[in-house]
Amino acid sequence: MIRRFDARIHERKKMFGGEGEGVFHRILNGPEEMYGKGRVFSQVHLDKGSEVAWHVHHGDGETYCILSGRGEYNDNGVIVEVGPGDVTFTDDGEGHAIKCISDEPLEMIALILYT
Amino acid sequence: MIRRFDARIHERKKMFGGEGEGVFHRILNGPEEMYGKGRVFSQVHLDKGSEVAWHVHHGDGETYCILSGRGEYNDNGVIVEVGPGDVTFTDDGEGHAIKCISDEPLEMIALILYT
Repeated sequence: MIRRFDARIHERKKMFGGEGEGVFHRILNGPEEMYGKGRVFSQVHLDKGSEVAWHVHHGDGETYCILSGRGEYNDNGVIVEVGPGDVTFTDDGEGHAIKCISDEPLEMIALILYT
Repeated sequence: MIRRFDARIHERKKMFGGEGEGVFHRILNGPEEMYGKGRVFSQVHLDKGSEVAWHVHHGDGETYCILSGRGEYNDNGVIVEVGPGDVTFTDDGEGHAIKCISDEPLEMIALILYT
C-alpha cells in the first residue's frame, strides 16, 4: 500500500505547553496501523525556538532520530545538544524535551512503542 | 539515553540478492531495544541502481518512509514510483522491493513491527 504525502495526516500543534508549535507528519496513524505495538510513528518539524516540552512516559518508550537541524535536548533531566544522526531513547518512567536551537529547522523521526 | 551517530551500528550489505548494496544505519538495534515489538528500525541509504530486492513478510509488516531521492517500488506486485514524503506499507504475507532510480541517493526510514 502506498500513501502519498498529501494523503498523510499533517498536524500543527503545541506540544505539552511548550514554546511555539511543531508540525507532525504522521507516518502511521496510531495503534491500529501499528499492530497495536505502539502509538506514534511520525516525522516532526520544529522551527527555531519551538519545542516539544517536558513530558514523562508511562507504559511506553520514545525514540527520536535527528535528521537535520540542532536541538537542545533534555535527556531525563540532563541537558545535551543533539544534531543529525543522533538517536535519543526515553524509557518507560523517564522524561524528555527537545527545542530547536538552529536557524535550520529541526527534523526528526519519532517512534513510541508500548512496553 | 543519547546514542551519537558514531556509536550506532552501520552496515553495508546486499539485500535479498538485489543489485548493488544498501547502507543501513540502525536507529534501534533489534527486538531487545524495541520492547520485543519489532525487529528493524533503521535509516536506509541506496545509491542509484541499488535495491532492496523482492521479499515477502511473514509474521510482521514493514513501513518505508521516503525522505529523499526517487525509487521504483514493487508494491506487492504492482510497480510504482515513489519519492519524498511517500509512505509504503507491506502487510504480513505481502511482498515488496525498492530500487533507487535517481542520481540523488534514496534515503528512507524502515520500520518492521511484529503482527
